[in-house]
Amino acid sequence: MTVCNLISKLQLRFTKVLSFGFCIILLVLTLSTPALAQERDQMVRFAKIKVDPLQLVEYTTALKEQMETAVRVEQGVLSYHAVADKSDPTTITILEIYADSAAYQTHILTPHFLKYKETVKDMVKSLELVDLNIIGIAKKPDH
Amino acid sequence: MTVCNLISKLQLRFTKVLSFGFCIILLVLTLSTPALAQERDQMVRFAKIKVDPLQLVEYTTALKEQMETAVRVEQGVLSYHAVADKSDPTTITILEIYADSAAYQTHILTPHFLKYKETVKDMVKSLELVDLNIIGIAKKPDH
Repeated sequence: MTVCNLISKLQLRFTKVLSFGFCIILLVLTLSTPALAQERDQMVRFAKIKVDPLQLVEYTTALKEQMETAVRVEQGVLSYHAVADKSDPTTITILEIYADSAAYQTHILTPHFLKYKETVKDMVKSLELVDLNIIGIAKKPDH
Repeated sequence: MTVCNLISKLQLRFTKVLSFGFCIILLVLTLSTPALAQERDQMVRFAKIKVDPLQLVEYTTALKEQMETAVRVEQGVLSYHAVADKSDPTTITILEIYADSAAYQTHILTPHFLKYKETVKDMVKSLELVDLNIIGIAKKPDH
């Protein structure tokens, strides 16, 4: 085997390794893109609500019914976390996550959402909506 | 069979049904109490943080590392949802859920939390902690 032959063989092997590596990178990119796109498209926000103290029980009942129904029947409603300040239970914040803004537009026309809005219209003293980006979510599998 | 015998038999059957029902109710209460107690004990809060704009990338890197490590290695750290205002990415809110206040007290002495606090001490411009009660959580199984 001449030196030229050896160099030629090494070049061929190098090209093969390079091609294989390129294919792997392409595959990883192709597989991960839909997941990244899904997260990027998500519509996330806080609904900050002040509730009439005299109607707090009725309000939370209506809110829980709305949240549970929406998550159960709507594909694009991903999660709601509703919390109240310990120092003032009438100050309520809901962290809402929708698959995308189209899912949200569908959501606000559903019968259960319209029923909720009608039920609570005289219970809510103020509503502030804050659009958000997710930095990170870390949680136990069952949480 | 006399009428007295019949009444006595019916009384015995009624007592049996009553005992059985009582046992079922007791069983349900016993099984559901730990879950209710678990939720009642949870320590939930918002950490509202203003970050130095010049150190935002470094801050979110440190935050994500802290959240992921804590949830992975600490039994009592249940979940973190970290979000930033779209209109101002330096305004960050973290919804934190711990199994109970003992779990939180353990958490703040862990090496990963102390490392995070040391790393971000000059990146955080202000920190407000708001204790919360959960009204309700509704979510798809994988969220």
